[in-house]
Order: sequence, then structure tokens, then C-alpha cells
Amino acid sequence: MAVVKSPLPEPARQVTYDALQSTLVDLLGLSLIGKQAHWNIVGPRFRSVHLQLDEVVAAARGFADTVAERASALGLPPDGRPETIASAFTLPSPKDGWLRDEEVVQVIAETLGAAIGRLRERITATEEADPVTQDLLIGITAELEKQRWMFEAENVTS
Amino acid sequence: MAVVKSPLPEPARQVTYDALQSTLVDLLGLSLIGKQAHWNIVGPRFRSVHLQLDEVVAAARGFADTVAERASALGLPPDGRPETIASAFTLPSPKDGWLRDEEVVQVIAETLGAAIGRLRERITATEEADPVTQDLLIGITAELEKQRWMFEAENVTS
Amino acid sequence: MAVVKSPLPEPARQVTYDALQSTLVDLLGLSLIGKQAHWNIVGPRFRSVHLQLDEVVAAARGFADTVAERASALGLPPDGRPETIASAFTLPSPKDGWLRDEEVVQVIAETLGAAIGRLRERITATEEADPVTQDLLIGITAELEKQRWMFEAENVTS
Amino acid sequence: MAVVKSPLPEPARQVTYDALQSTLVDLLGLSLIGKQAHWNIVGPRFRSVHLQLDEVVAAARGFADTVAERASALGLPPDGRPETIASAFTLPSPKDGWLRDEEVVQVIAETLGAAIGRLRERITATEEADPVTQDLLIGITAELEKQRWMFEAENVTS
Amino acid sequence: MAVVKSPLPEPARQVTYDALQSTLVDLLGLSLIGKQAHWNIVGPRFRSVHLQLDEVVAAARGFADTVAERASALGLPPDGRPETIASAFTLPSPKDGWLRDEEVVQVIAETLGAAIGRLRERITATEEADPVTQDLLIGITAELEKQRWMFEAENVTS
Amino acid sequence: MAVVKSPLPEPARQVTYDALQSTLVDLLGLSLIGKQAHWNIVGPRFRSVHLQLDEVVAAARGFADTVAERASALGLPPDGRPETIASAFTLPSPKDGWLRDEEVVQVIAETLGAAIGRLRERITATEEADPVTQDLLIGITAELEKQRWMFEAENVTS
Amino acid sequence: MAVVKSPLPEPARQVTYDALQSTLVDLLGLSLIGKQAHWNIVGPRFRSVHLQLDEVVAAARGFADTVAERASALGLPPDGRPETIASAFTLPSPKDGWLRDEEVVQVIAETLGAAIGRLRERITATEEADPVTQDLLIGITAELEKQRWMFEAENVTS
Amino acid sequence: MAVVKSPLPEPARQVTYDALQSTLVDLLGLSLIGKQAHWNIVGPRFRSVHLQLDEVVAAARGFADTVAERASALGLPPDGRPETIASAFTLPSPKDGWLRDEEVVQVIAETLGAAIGRLRERITATEEADPVTQDLLIGITAELEKQRWMFEAENVTS
Amino acid sequence: MAVVKSPLPEPARQVTYDALQSTLVDLLGLSLIGKQAHWNIVGPRFRSVHLQLDEVVAAARGFADTVAERASALGLPPDGRPETIASAFTLPSPKDGWLRDEEVVQVIAETLGAAIGRLRERITATEEADPVTQDLLIGITAELEKQRWMFEAENVTS
Amino acid sequence: MAVVKSPLPEPARQVTYDALQSTLVDLLGLSLIGKQAHWNIVGPRFRSVHLQLDEVVAAARGFADTVAERASALGLPPDGRPETIASAFTLPSPKDGWLRDEEVVQVIAETLGAAIGRLRERITATEEADPVTQDLLIGITAELEKQRWMFEAENVTS
Amino acid sequence: MAVVKSPLPEPARQVTYDALQSTLVDLLGLSLIGKQAHWNIVGPRFRSVHLQLDEVVAAARGFADTVAERASALGLPPDGRPETIASAFTLPSPKDGWLRDEEVVQVIAETLGAAIGRLRERITATEEADPVTQDLLIGITAELEKQRWMFEAENVTS
Amino acid sequence: MAVVKSPLPEPARQVTYDALQSTLVDLLGLSLIGKQAHWNIVGPRFRSVHLQLDEVVAAARGFADTVAERASALGLPPDGRPETIASAFTLPSPKDGWLRDEEVVQVIAETLGAAIGRLRERITATEEADPVTQDLLIGITAELEKQRWMFEAENVTS
Repeated sequence: MAVVKSPLPEPARQVTYDALQSTLVDLLGLSLIGKQAHWNIVGPRFRSVHLQLDEVVAAARGFADTVAERASALGLPPDGRPETIASAFTLPSPKDGWLRDEEVVQVIAETLGAAIGRLRERITATEEADPVTQDLLIGITAELEKQRWMFEAENVTS
Repeated sequence: MAVVKSPLPEPARQVTYDALQSTLVDLLGLSLIGKQAHWNIVGPRFRSVHLQLDEVVAAARGFADTVAERASALGLPPDGRPETIASAFTLPSPKDGWLRDEEVVQVIAETLGAAIGRLRERITATEEADPVTQDLLIGITAELEKQRWMFEAENVTS
Repeated sequence: MAVVKSPLPEPARQVTYDALQSTLVDLLGLSLIGKQAHWNIVGPRFRSVHLQLDEVVAAARGFADTVAERASALGLPPDGRPETIASAFTLPSPKDGWLRDEEVVQVIAETLGAAIGRLRERITATEEADPVTQDLLIGITAELEKQRWMFEAENVTS
Repeated sequence: MAVVKSPLPEPARQVTYDALQSTLVDLLGLSLIGKQAHWNIVGPRFRSVHLQLDEVVAAARGFADTVAERASALGLPPDGRPETIASAFTLPSPKDGWLRDEEVVQVIAETLGAAIGRLRERITATEEADPVTQDLLIGITAELEKQRWMFEAENVTS
Repeated sequence: MAVVKSPLPEPARQVTYDALQSTLVDLLGLSLIGKQAHWNIVGPRFRSVHLQLDEVVAAARGFADTVAERASALGLPPDGRPETIASAFTLPSPKDGWLRDEEVVQVIAETLGAAIGRLRERITATEEADPVTQDLLIGITAELEKQRWMFEAENVTS
Repeated sequence: MAVVKSPLPEPARQVTYDALQSTLVDLLGLSLIGKQAHWNIVGPRFRSVHLQLDEVVAAARGFADTVAERASALGLPPDGRPETIASAFTLPSPKDGWLRDEEVVQVIAETLGAAIGRLRERITATEEADPVTQDLLIGITAELEKQRWMFEAENVTS
Repeated sequence: MAVVKSPLPEPARQVTYDALQSTLVDLLGLSLIGKQAHWNIVGPRFRSVHLQLDEVVAAARGFADTVAERASALGLPPDGRPETIASAFTLPSPKDGWLRDEEVVQVIAETLGAAIGRLRERITATEEADPVTQDLLIGITAELEKQRWMFEAENVTS
Repeated sequence: MAVVKSPLPEPARQVTYDALQSTLVDLLGLSLIGKQAHWNIVGPRFRSVHLQLDEVVAAARGFADTVAERASALGLPPDGRPETIASAFTLPSPKDGWLRDEEVVQVIAETLGAAIGRLRERITATEEADPVTQDLLIGITAELEKQRWMFEAENVTS
Repeated sequence: MAVVKSPLPEPARQVTYDALQSTLVDLLGLSLIGKQAHWNIVGPRFRSVHLQLDEVVAAARGFADTVAERASALGLPPDGRPETIASAFTLPSPKDGWLRDEEVVQVIAETLGAAIGRLRERITATEEADPVTQDLLIGITAELEKQRWMFEAENVTS
Repeated sequence: MAVVKSPLPEPARQVTYDALQSTLVDLLGLSLIGKQAHWNIVGPRFRSVHLQLDEVVAAARGFADTVAERASALGLPPDGRPETIASAFTLPSPKDGWLRDEEVVQVIAETLGAAIGRLRERITATEEADPVTQDLLIGITAELEKQRWMFEAENVTS
Repeated sequence: MAVVKSPLPEPARQVTYDALQSTLVDLLGLSLIGKQAHWNIVGPRFRSVHLQLDEVVAAARGFADTVAERASALGLPPDGRPETIASAFTLPSPKDGWLRDEEVVQVIAETLGAAIGRLRERITATEEADPVTQDLLIGITAELEKQRWMFEAENVTS
Repeated sequence: MAVVKSPLPEPARQVTYDALQSTLVDLLGLSLIGKQAHWNIVGPRFRSVHLQLDEVVAAARGFADTVAERASALGLPPDGRPETIASAFTLPSPKDGWLRDEEVVQVIAETLGAAIGRLRERITATEEADPVTQDLLIGITAELEKQRWMFEAENVTS
């Protein structure tokens, strides 16, 4: 059932769908592991990182909504169900249980770094297929790169 | 590593942990499938249900945060990672792809009904173990029952 | 009288002017027919669509202002007078008098679809002439495609 | 199709309709030329008048909405489509292209003066036909007279 | 005990009192049956009408307060006690128990229509007695007519 | 027509219904007599008590809404129509006409005291039947006891 | 120098000017003596009346601005200079130095009563001359009558 | 009747009273002539100066309130009645009727300059008598000197 | 002088009084030592802990107000005077002078832990005596346990 | 341990420390007894004085924070612990238990009067030692003198 | 010390660094000369241009922050120290001392024009090197071109 | 060209000018190096100090504006151009490139300490020349001393 007509022709439609769907999975996964770290972090930098993680989660949730609604607007139903995220999400993640503050800072910096690398590939991939989607991905990348920098800067030790 | 000391003795601690951890999984799963329906719904009642689902998601996210922080406050690290949700979440869920408005109303009413049934068991289970946690679960149940009623009421057809 | 000097050389200036001026006409016309439908709609879905149309009008008015000020900023005086809109506006429009709700949903989806098609042509046309203007047109297209999806999704019938 | 029953008998209905429909055209036209001047004004007083015009536009849009919904509430479908405005709007208007600030101040003062003259006639005309509509027209007149004074006061030159 | 002196002479005082007291009863009754419908409505349009009714209730409560304080200001103690409303309120009302959405829309449109008819009589009656009170009644009528139109328009079926 | 299924079995359902319905009547009646006193009070403490009464009314209205929606959520349609309140409301009330400030303080303190006594009985009655409803009644009691204290404290005379 | 053209013909213009100018003097004087009492009041009701007086001052200042701008809008320059107020203001006023609370309540009630009497004459006088000005004076009267009632009600002693 | 005890001994009390009472007169007079100019100004700079004058009025009113309450707090009843201002206010003032924009700018700059000169004398006079009052006068002077600069700067012509 | 009648019989009244009065002392003491630490903390984590302490103080002040007003509402005058706090407050406290950040984190975690232990005893003690007071103590415990967790988590060192 | 270097030399440092530390004790004590009176007051003026006391408490708390942070900024650790306040606070205070409203007004006026006398001595003492601290003490005195006036004015009886 | 790893390879890194660093200097310089003109402007258009300049400064400061943080995010430490700006800033600037309003308008229009020309070169230069940075520079250009238009439009003289 | 007349005579004018101009340079320089550190800081305390520096910058910018406008108000044109700051700014500053967090804390504490020393000299210098300016400098000193304390406190290491 293709109920919402797409303004994009094939093969641009498939390319754009792949970029949006995989970005959606990355962002939803990021929002979940951001909260996981927010709740389980311990150590002297607890409060500062605890608050910072909520900014990552807020950004990830907001972008996930925009990305999924963009897919729907192009006639491409997005998939953000629990089982889809569990099987498709492959970015570095924290382990179970309490997490030391320096572990958190390091793993989130890595997660963001990996997410950014994948986003940059999609920016290239969608340039021809749909410049509107490309513009959206550029905006997401800018914000995640700023967030990554802050964790990176915080990760430096004497 | 048991880094945050618990104010609860055993076995109250284990009982409370089970109640909080399983509630966390239900709420995070609910927030994901609420968004899935929000994005994929079609039909004449699109706008009304589209907006209503965001209220369910907001409630689920807010309660998940409170539940997880309550677990941490009791020295019990919560687990809300993607793979945990995917394996532990068992409530009724919508299928992939576009969803007709009446399907959405029905499945969300069922999801909420199942979640409520499980919460009421946990209210009984925590009465002795920790009245502070019990009070929190009662509040969540009240809100989800109100949400369920609205979908039920909307589900009546001539 | 060319009082505001243009930072753009010919022929880029003419290309950009054409894109902005025709977009301005489309948006002002859209804001007027959106209000026309807002006032004349009748039927069971009256209230829901009545409110939804005001969101279209607000978006159209906001974008019209930005587009016209962009033209002025490029030394190109925009033209949004009543007679200009009447003669240059060619998108599908509702008829005079009361309008049934399903008619409204269908015609507004068509109006938005036609507007998007024309905007995508202008995105291509301005790529060389002025990337700043192109970026603005991309943003407008993203929003109108989202609005179109909502009317499309609502237009699905059993 | 006369779908909304009118609480007014004939001939009061026709008198009221004429007053509301012609006021609607004047206000929508005023909102369009207010924006036209807002965008195209040049000269030393650019910034001050640029801001002042947006207050005129906001007032005109707000009153147009109230007037059109009043017509619908009386069972009289209003007409605010582009072609209707273009053919029925007869108030003094700015010309195409850049506009000197003193020209703008003068023409808007004239537009407002002409609109007020027509409104005062309609206040008299609707006194018997529908006092509720008359009260609405009195409120619009008070505001437009205040706006006109400000342009008049600004129009005084040494 | 006539503690607050009235600025109105007889018989204007009695005429004005009758208009205000009967309007107070209508508005308090309207606020109660609006809530009754808000709580008991069922059916596919549940959410939309549920919200719309709260706007009617808010308007009715606000106007009731203004009307009663106007009476006190004129030295005429208003009466809004439960038994007074029960005996004096005669507008069409919903029955006990669950209410179908189309029933609600129809009965509230009728209630508002009847209230408006009575208000228009009072506008005539108070013209001589107290123009300040008349002006207040005109404002209430304008708002209730707008509300009625929305329920009327919504009440049209294929 | 039992359209909303109840999550409560008999006889818990009837017990809970009785508690909620009688609380609803008490709160709606309280909101009406609070306004009656707000409008008719005279004497040196006029302004202070006039404002204080609006806080009572606001609390009563808010709780009435929560109580009625709780009933609906349990499949039990609430009844707040004028005739129901008039026949079922039995708390102490002010008389008709102007009211001296010390009379107002005394009667409202009595009304609140009586309402609290009845609420405490319902807290006991619903402990087994529905702990969620009991929790709601406890919250209402806490607020009304605070309000009563303020009127009591104010009622002390030399 | 008649720089702002008047939309009113003679003699309507003079009638309207007299009504607006004398209202302006009354309101500015009222704002000054309201503050005088606000600063000099003493006695057990100090705080309550101290706050109440600021509401009178705020209303008087706001209306004075509206009245004076209405005069300017009609081409009639208003006069609110200190010497004009001192010579033209004739309403009852408080004496110099500390003021007992019951004195303040009485004199302000008298001032408001006198101001209202004069406003009602002007409402009659402007009915033919300018219905827009009449509508404004009616609104001011309604507010001052409400304020007067509150001081009257407070002035009653056992 | 010396009802509020003064924390200041003689002769400091008299010195402070003179400084506060004369400042009160200057500020209330300034607030009145600021409004007079606000209403009667005409000319090309109408809007800009019209708005600027309201900032002077707001500052003058706020400081007048602080100064008068400071006098009361020191047991010295302030006098701000119309006749007192009329006889004691001696700063440069605008004439009656319409005022050209350049006249307004010049006279307000002069008024502020004269007010500042008098305030600086009072700063010296109160240094010993009451440093708290001196601090208040310093704050008023700083603000009025800033306002004066803006009118001075605007008064420069080619 | 027993001026406010208590709704509680003996011995419930004495039990409840003891619980509320000792909680009041703990909370007021906590607000004072929270500020003491807020002002005297030094070390690398200064800023983060400095801010966190103000959240503890805000919570303690808010709860103290609720607890004391609850006592008054039950006819039991609370005692929060300086000498009472000094003699009755026994929770762990910081010493005089500058405080190292790790000392602050540790002592506040201990203070909160001790306060929680005492609150849990009072929850048990008031279950029979007054469930409304018990519900209030449960809410305070939940918040203090959350605050304690944050200091505990921050107290973990490598 | 003198961790924060002082910008003040001896003996100015000691003089300033004495002034700040004794002011801190007075303000914290004032905030505690203000709340004590807020909770225990009874009588006809209950509500008015109950609210007024919270303004005193808010001012005292805000100034205490500023004073203590000023001490820290000068390298002088402030001391606001319970035992310090209890031993060093010597201003007039209310007794234990319920308090009549006129007693409260009188004792708070006395407390404020005594605090002001001590502050004026410290203004003199710090003039040479640290003008920045002197400026802060002047601001506190101005506010407390205003508060004292209000209680004094309210304390006047026939 | 290369502490933050760069996601960009050479030579893209150097190209991007040059673009960001030179833009930072232009923006910081622009913010300083915008303030210089804001403080020193005189003439009839003082107020209008005085306010307009603060919008330029706010934009320049906001963009400078974004640009510098973008550099850091790419592992490239930005340099905005006073000596760097003084030596590297080459855009047209106002002279020392008072500035006539028309001089200010002209020089700021020139400054903005020059800044825009340099930004457009950097847009071309970064297209290959880093599209995310390019997108940021496009946004800055759009805003500065809009600001320039306003000064240009204001610069037109008869 | 001495366009704005000065209310100060010589030599007070020159003394005041020197104090204001040198303070302006210190504050603008402080705002630039504060941002420099904000962008280039690295290390475990990154986020906390990153945020704290923005508070220093905001304070410095706000005070710079007040100081420069005070100079203009006294007829003394201030100079804040890039070259002026570069040559006149002599406070301790951070070096180029990445900065370790402990370096940042130390250098900013030193910069603030040096700025405060210079401000205290100017407080003495302006006491006779202009007490209004002195009052402004006292306020700036108070704020910078508070900021310095926070960096000092944070600078303490084990």
C-alpha cells in the first residue's frame, strides 16, 4: 500500500530512503544510550556530564522526529520500532551497570565520531538524489560535531 | 561494583529492582512504538490521532526518566539499552509500514491495557518492599489509565 | 530607479529575481486561499481542518516575508500587490462559497503539490545564480512537503 | 447550498453581508499593500516606517479574520480569493518598485483615510440591520483612526 | 440591607438586574453542561469535541464572573447558588450518562442558539436602561455566535 | 450503554463510583458557593477575602475535573448537571444577597470542614477498592485542610 | 496650526473635544491623588488598600493615554500639563500628610463617584457626535464603576 | 500626627525631606510633560521621539514612586497632589498644542539638564544627612544623564 | 491558647506533631548548612557543587514551608526559631571556615542519608495516625533520596 | 588555611569582616523568625500579614546570600550555621506558639528597627575600609527601612 | 599540542582553517566598530541608527561564537585575542570621536559590503574542503546581506 | 566638535574621562580574552569552566556598554576600536592555541585581580570629580571581585 505519493522518482527515492532510515536508527539508538549513561554515571564529574548527556538526548530525539517525518513526507514509511533499532544499530555503546565518568566521556565521544562518519557519507550520497534531505543531514552533522568536540575536549587528561 | 549504597535491605531491594526495571522497559518501548504510529498513520482522523500520540510519548519519556533515576537513587543501576528493550519488551505493537487510523487506535489501546495490567501487579508487589516506589507506580498507572480511556472512547464505532 | 545596489551580476540577478518573485506570488496566493478555505469549510471534520489550515497560512505568510526581504536585500524590489497576485497566481484553488471538508483536503494537497514542483525547479535554477537563495528555497520546500504529507495522509479513505 | 442557517432575516442579511464583504476586501488589500510598502520602502526614515507598517498589517490581518468569521457565523460565506481582491479593492495604493519613505507615509495615510470614510458609512448602514456587526465596525474604525493619526503626524514637513 | 448604592434610578435598575441575573444563570448552567459533555462524550470525534467544549466552558466562566461583578457594581447582589441555577436554568441540556459525539455537537449548538436568542432580547431591553450593560451583553453575544457557528458548521452531514 | 470498559471488578467498581460521584458534587457545589461569596461579600476585609475565595474556587474546579475524568477512565460516567448538584449538595452554604465578611469566613470554614470529614470517610472506603482513587482523594484532602486552616486562623477574634 | 486633519465635521468636533479633554484632566488628577493616598495611608488595613490604590492608578494612567491619543487621532491636541490639571481638576481629593485607612477608602469612593457622574453626561453628549468616542467612554465608565463598588463595599462598617 | 517614627534625627531629617520632596515634584512634573509631548508631537521624526518619550515617562514614574516611599519610610509624608506640582514645578516645559519634533527634542533636553543640575546639588546636601537617600539620588541622576545625552545627540543638526 | 481546632484526636495528634516538628528542624537545619557549604566550598569542582547545593537548599526550604503549614492546619503550632533549630538539629554538619569540595560532597551525602533514615521511621510512625501527613513524608523522602544519590555518585573516586 | 586571597589589607579586612558577618547573622535570623510568624499568626488580619511576611523572608534570604558571597569574595569565610545564628542573633523575636496578628506587626516592626540601627552603624564603619561593601549595606538598609515603614503604618490604631 | 583530533584530512583542514579564522577576525572587528558607532553617533537619526547598530553587533557576536566553536570542533584552535584582531582586521572603519548619523550609515554599509565580498570567496573555497563549514558561511552571508540592505536603503538621500 | 555638552566642569571632566576610558579598554579586552579561553580550553573541567567564562564575558560586555554610554552622557566620546584596545590593554592574557583548564583558571584569576586593583584606584580618583561615575565603578568592582573569588576557589588544589 503506497498511500502517500512521493515527489521523488526512482532511483533517487531509494537512495534517499536508505539515508533517512539509517540516520533514524542511529539517532534513536543514540538517544537510548545517552539516557543509559545519564542514569548510570558515577564519579567526581557526575553532575556536569549527567546534564551534558541530556543535551545530547534532546538533540537526538528532535532530529529523529524531523528525519522520520521527512521520510513520510517523501512517501517512504520510516521504521523506528524496538526490534529494528536493536538489529540495525551498530555504533559503539556503553556496557551494562554503573559507568565511571571517564568511561562515559570516552564512549560517547566515540559514538558521536562514528555517527558523524556515517552521516558524512550520506551527505555525499544524497547530493544528487534530494538536496532538501542533504540540507537536513548537514544540519544534523554540524550539531553532532559540536557535541563531539565537547566530549573530546573533556576527555583530555594530564 | 556496588558504588551507590542502597537504603533498602534485601529482599526488599530485589523486589523493588524488578518492579522498576520491568517498568522502565515497558515505558521506553511504549515511547518508541508511540512515535512509530505518530509517523506512519494515515486516514481521515490523521491529525487528531497524530497529535494524541505525542502526548502518550511525552508521558512515557517523562515517567521512564523518573523510574530510572529512582532505581539509581536506590543503588540499583537501570538498563535501558536498545538490545535490552528489544529482548524484554513484550507489549502489543504496530506492524511495519503505513497504518490506518483505526488500526492505530486499537493497537495503542491494547498496548496501554497490557502495560496497566503489569503495573497493577507491581503496585501490589512493592507495597511492603518500598512505599516510596509504590507511590510512584500508582501515579504512573493513573496517567496511563486516563490515556487508555481516551483511545478506548475513540475506538467505539456506530 | 535602482536604489539598492545588487551584490549579484547579470544574468544571475535576473534568474534569482524570477525565482524569488514567482515564489512570492505562490506564497501570498497560498496564504489567501488557505484563509478562504479556513472560513468556508463545512462538514464533520470542520474543526480539525479549520485549525490545520491556519498552520499553512502562518507558514506561507512567514516565508513570503522572508522571500520578499531577500529580494530587497539583493536589490530587486518584490511585487506583492493585489493585482500582481491575481494575474500571476496559477496554482489550483478552491471555488467560491461553502466548501465540503473532503474537497478542501484534496484541493489544498494539490495546491501544495504544484507549489512544490515549481519550487524544485527553482532550486535547480538558482544553484549557480545564488546559493544563498537556493538554501532559502530548500527550507521552504522542506516545510511545504511536510504540510503536503499531512493533507495526503488525511486524504486516504477506506 | 445554504448550509449555515442565518440568524438574520432579509433585508438585514443583505445589508450586513455587503458591509462585511466590502470591509473584508479593504482589509485584505490593506494587509497586502502594507507589506508591499514594508518591503519596498527606501530613504532616511526606512527603519522607523518599516516597523510601523507591520503594525498596520497585523491589525488588518486580525480584523480580516474577525470580519470573515462574523460573515460565516451569520450564514454568509465570505470571499477573500486573490481575484476577488484584485477586482474589488479600490483604495489608494503604492506603485510598483522602490518607494520613497515620504511617499509611503502619504499614501498609507490616504489609504487609511479612505478606508475610515467607508467604514463610517457602514457603521450607519448596519445600525438597524445588526448591532453586533456595527459594534465590530466601530472597534475597527477606532484602531484605524489611531494608525492614521500616526502617519498624519509623521507626514508634517517643515 | 442595600449596602452598595446603585448609580441607576428605577425602573432602569430593575430592567438591568433582570438582564444580568438571567444571563448569569444561563452562563453558569452552560459552564456546567459544557463540562458534563466534556466528561461523558464518546465516539470517533471524541478528542476534537472534548477540547472544543473546554473553550466554551472557559468563555462561560469568564463572562459569568464579569456579569456578576457588573451586578454588584450596580448595587444589585447576584445569585449564582446551586438551587438558583437548578430552578432557573431552562436551556436545552444533555441527558445523563455517556453521550455520542454527534449528540453533543447538536445539543450544544442548540443550547448556544437558545442562549443567543435570549441575549439578543436583553440587548434590546437594556439599550435605554444602561448602555454599559448593553455593551457587555453585545460582547458576550459576539463570542457565543462565533462558538455556535463552529458547532453548526461541524454539525452538517453528508 | 456501557461503552467504556472498567478495569475494576464488582463490588469495587460501585464503591469507587460512589466515592467519586459524591466528591464531584461536593466540589462543584463548593466552586459555586465560593463564587457566590466572592461576588456578594461586603465589609472591611472585603478585598483580602474576595481574593482568597478565588483560590478556593480554582482548587475546587481543578479537582472536580480530575475526579470526573477519573470516573470516566474507570468506565463510570460522572454526573455534574445543574439539577444533580442542586439535589445532592448538602454542605453548609451562604444565604442569598449581600454577605458580611465575618459571615463569609465562618461559613466557608464550615463548608470546608464538612467536606473534609466526608473525604476522610471516602479515603477509608476506597483503600481496598482502588488505591489509585484513594491517592487522589488524599491529595484533595491535604489541599482543602490547608485552605480550611487559613479560614480558621482568620476566624479567630479577640 | 491644524496639522492633523480631523475626520469629524463641526460642531461634532468641538463636542467630542470637550468630552475627551475634560476626561483627560479627571483621569490624570485621579492618577496623582491615587498615588498620594498610596504613599500616605496608615492603619490596620494599610497593605490591602495600599495595593488596591495601585490598581486605580494603573487604570487611570492607561485610560488617560487612550483618551489623549484618541483626541490626537481626531486632530484635536490634548492638554495634560501640570498647570492645566491644577486649574481644571475639581474632583474630591485627600488632604496633605498622613491619611487614616478609613479616610482613604471614603475619599476615593467619592472621587470615583464624582468622576462617574461626569462621564455619564459625556456618554450622552457624544452619542450623535462620534459613536467611536462614545464607545470608549462607556468602557472607562464600566471600569471605574467596578472600582468604586469595591471601595464602597469596603466602606461599610458595622 | 507623626505616626511613622523616623530613623533620622534633626536636622538630618529636614535636609533629607527637602531633597526628597523637591525631587518628587520634579519627577512627577517630568512624567506629565513627557506625556504631553508624547501626545502632541508632529513631524518626520514623530514615531521615534514618540516612543523615546515613553521611556522618559516610565523612568520618571518609577523613580517618583521610589522617592515618595523613601520619604514615608523616613517618617516624612510626601506631597504629590496636583496643586502642589502646579505651584512647585519650575523646570522648562513645552507649550500647549501641537509641537514640532525638533522643538520637543530641544525642550526635553533642557528639562532634563535643569533637573540634573538640581539633583547634583541634593547629592551634595544629603551626603552627611542620609547616605541611603544620597545613593538613591545618584542612581536617578545616572539615568537622567543618560536620557539627556540621547536627546542632546539627537538635537545635533548639520 | 489552642486557637486552631485539630481534626485529629489524641494520641494521633501527638504522634503527628512529633513527626512534623522534627522534620521541620531537620529541613531548616539542612537549608542552613547547605548554604554554609555553598558559600565556603573551594576546589576544582567548586562551580558544579556550588550550584548543586542551591538545589538542595531550594528543596529543603520548600518542604519546610509545607511541613510547617501542615502542622498549623492540624492545630499544632510549629517551631522554627533560631534557638530551637540550634538545640534540636543533630544531623552531620560541615565545620567552620573554608571547605574542600570532596569534604562537602561527603558530608552532604551523610547529612542526607541520616535525614532519610529518620524520615523512613516517621513514615512508619504516621501510617495509622494520619495518612495525609504520611503521604507528605513519602514525597519528601523520594526527593531527598534522589539528591543523596547524586552526591553519592559524585563521591566515587578512582 | 587562607585559600582565597583578600584584595583588602589589614585592618580594613577585619572591619569589613565584622560588618558582613554580623549582617549575615541578622538576616538569617530575620528570615527564620519571619517564617515563624508566617506559620503561627492568627487573627482577622491573618491573610494580609501572612503574605507580607513572605516578602520580608524573601528579601532577607536574598540579601543573606549576597552578603555571604561578598565575604567569600574578600577572602573571609562567612559563618551561617545553626549554632552560630542561635548564639549571635540578638534582635527582638516572637515567642513560641500561636501569635496574634497585632503582636506580629509590632514585633516585626521592632526587629526591623533594631536591624536598621545596627546597619547604619556598619555603613559608617565601612566607609573607609571598603566602599564596595558600604554600597551593599546601603542597599540593604534602604529595603529594610521600606519594609519597616509598612509594618509601622499598619501598626497605627484608632 | 594537537589535542582535539580533526575529522578533516590535509589539505582540506588548512583551507577550512583559513576560512574560519579570517571570518572570526572580521566578525569580532565588526562587533567592536559597531559598538564604537553605537556610542558616538549624533544627529537627527540618532535613536533609530543607535538601535539598529546593536542588532548588527548581536549578529556579529553570535556568528563569531559559532565560527570559533566550529574551528575547535575541527581540531583547529581559533585566535580572537586583541592583538590578533588589531593586526588582521582590514575592513572599513569609523574614525575616532563623535560621528554624524549619515557618516555612520555609509561606513557600516561599506564595512558590511566588504565583509560580504570576502565571505563569498570563502564559500567557493570551502565547497570541496568541508560542506558543513560552507553551509555555515552561507548562513552568515545571508544575514549580513540583509543587514547591508537595510543600511543601503537608509543611505539613499534626495 | 564638542557636540554633547558636559554637565561636568574642568578638571573634573578630564579625571572622569580618564577613569571611564581606561575602564572601557580593560573591559573590552577582558571580553575578548574570556572568549579566547572559552574556545580553546581543554581538560577534564572543560564544560564547567567553558560555561563560567561566558558569564565573565557577559558581565564584561554589559559593563563596557554602560561605561561607554556614561562617557557619552558626560560629553566625552569613548574609544573602543580594535587598534585602541590592542595598544592600551595591558592585563595578563592567555597565550595562543589550546589551553589546559588549570592554566585558564589561573590566568583569568590573575586578569581579574589586576583589573580590580586598577578599578579601586579609579574609585578613589573619581570620588570628588563625579560621585555618579564612582558609584558605577563600585558596582563593577563588586561583580568582578565575585567572579575572581570563584576562579580563586576553583584554583585550590590538593
